[in-house]
Amino acid sequence: MLRKLGSSLSKPLSLQLTSKIAAADVQKRWCHCQIQMGSPETPSPKLLFRQLYEKESSTYTYLLADVSHPDRPALLIDPVDKTVDRDLSLIQDLGLKLICAMNTHVHADHVTGTGLIKGKVSGVKSVISKASSSKADLLIEPGDKIHFGSLFLEVRATPGHTLGCVTYVTGDGPDQPQPRMAFTGDALLIRGCGRTDFQGGSSQQLYKSVHSQIFTLPKETFIFPAHDYKGFTVSTVGEELLYNPRLTKDEETFKGIMENLKLAYPKMIDIAVPANMVCGLQDSASKV
Amino acid sequence: MLRKLGSSLSKPLSLQLTSKIAAADVQKRWCHCQIQMGSPETPSPKLLFRQLYEKESSTYTYLLADVSHPDRPALLIDPVDKTVDRDLSLIQDLGLKLICAMNTHVHADHVTGTGLIKGKVSGVKSVISKASSSKADLLIEPGDKIHFGSLFLEVRATPGHTLGCVTYVTGDGPDQPQPRMAFTGDALLIRGCGRTDFQGGSSQQLYKSVHSQIFTLPKETFIFPAHDYKGFTVSTVGEELLYNPRLTKDEETFKGIMENLKLAYPKMIDIAVPANMVCGLQDSASKV
Repeated sequence: MLRKLGSSLSKPLSLQLTSKIAAADVQKRWCHCQIQMGSPETPSPKLLFRQLYEKESSTYTYLLADVSHPDRPALLIDPVDKTVDRDLSLIQDLGLKLICAMNTHVHADHVTGTGLIKGKVSGVKSVISKASSSKADLLIEPGDKIHFGSLFLEVRATPGHTLGCVTYVTGDGPDQPQPRMAFTGDALLIRGCGRTDFQGGSSQQLYKSVHSQIFTLPKETFIFPAHDYKGFTVSTVGEELLYNPRLTKDEETFKGIMENLKLAYPKMIDIAVPANMVCGLQDSASKV
Repeated sequence: MLRKLGSSLSKPLSLQLTSKIAAADVQKRWCHCQIQMGSPETPSPKLLFRQLYEKESSTYTYLLADVSHPDRPALLIDPVDKTVDRDLSLIQDLGLKLICAMNTHVHADHVTGTGLIKGKVSGVKSVISKASSSKADLLIEPGDKIHFGSLFLEVRATPGHTLGCVTYVTGDGPDQPQPRMAFTGDALLIRGCGRTDFQGGSSQQLYKSVHSQIFTLPKETFIFPAHDYKGFTVSTVGEELLYNPRLTKDEETFKGIMENLKLAYPKMIDIAVPANMVCGLQDSASKV
């Protein structure tokens, strides 16, 4: 359904973060962005969802919005610097108001788009885990809920690929998307997982994270990873429980697999990690 | 939900094709394939849907199955030769029975996977439009319905990129997926369209096809194209009606745009088109 909305918001939209973070940390001032024509419904009547792909690093960026809320608040998960203009153009076309640009972790293979986005859209908050030891507007912790309209994502700690990896999972409740959706970053990939030999990685920790935080979700939960290298777009908890060639193994076998991957040094790591550690706060960091 | 199914089918599964084609043309013998563990539900309780990507030609292949039917019959739209093993492995993991490997048109940029699929999975039917002048097990015409379980796709003629282009649209009815889904091939791309300077292409015809056959669908209808070069995965009729930079123009302007694209000769055309004209019947063709 397409809805004609006003050309600007008369009321600022506030980000709700149910969190251990002090409420005072959450700045509640938002720009008055132009809201254009509306957008399609998705299978959940409230959720507008788009999966976006960056070819060079095979990264997926995810756009989620509550289109039942008059302000159509939206989140971007794992935006890439090279595709920021595409993402913001789509957000404008769909008449959404971007409130958060989030990362699942400090990426080593591409530069996050959060810095560029903050420079282009006033009021957007960068989000990353406190455990990542990075800078961001909001440093989230396990159990935090990131609200957008009447929808929310919950934060689960899934370290092992990096020390600060989190998985964002759509809310549990009758008014939240069903099946649930898990944005697993590099913790769990489709029929694979992220490497564990850099950035505080630990195969033991990754095994525990996936089994305790992701594989305990309902089997029909969708898995949306940060990357895919074979052209898959989505999997489910049930599928990975049966067919993930690494994580279906016992812990010792898994550790052996991870120790013998013999992967090349990530070509972007020396550029990407320092940039991503400031997660959209480049300007303030460069002034330090 | 995961369901444990028997290891083989005791009853052959028949393809239903509501069609102008004589029923005798439709061979109804199917192999007894192994059906493995089940698969997740999708927002439509019956439809399992997967979008798959081939990076070199930026092609999307689509997998659709009726998981409410005991045999879990499945279709593949626009499979690519290079990713056939991936696609068949997924189909096996999901416990589906592939009954048709379909093309939206004779592709010029990659070789269809239908030939390889027919060689690997007994009983699969290749499908292409009669207007393409190609060979295939089933030559479909506008208005035909391709049934898989209790779901179906309807065939709409959308020539202009090639003479034989069709768009497959999920059925119209309360028991069919909502919103509807249109697999538009190269007729309508996200914020674009296929070129019209080869293979019987015509900008005038493409304009008419898109406006009469696709833009008349409900605005919330999902657009799933055969390609995307910017990392978009889906659009809607409503979005393209508003933002397609070519097809929102009047017909004369559109024709002018298409005549001045100055595109290079497609590098795969001399290999792909002859291969795709036999659409999975390579063996019989080579014997002629």
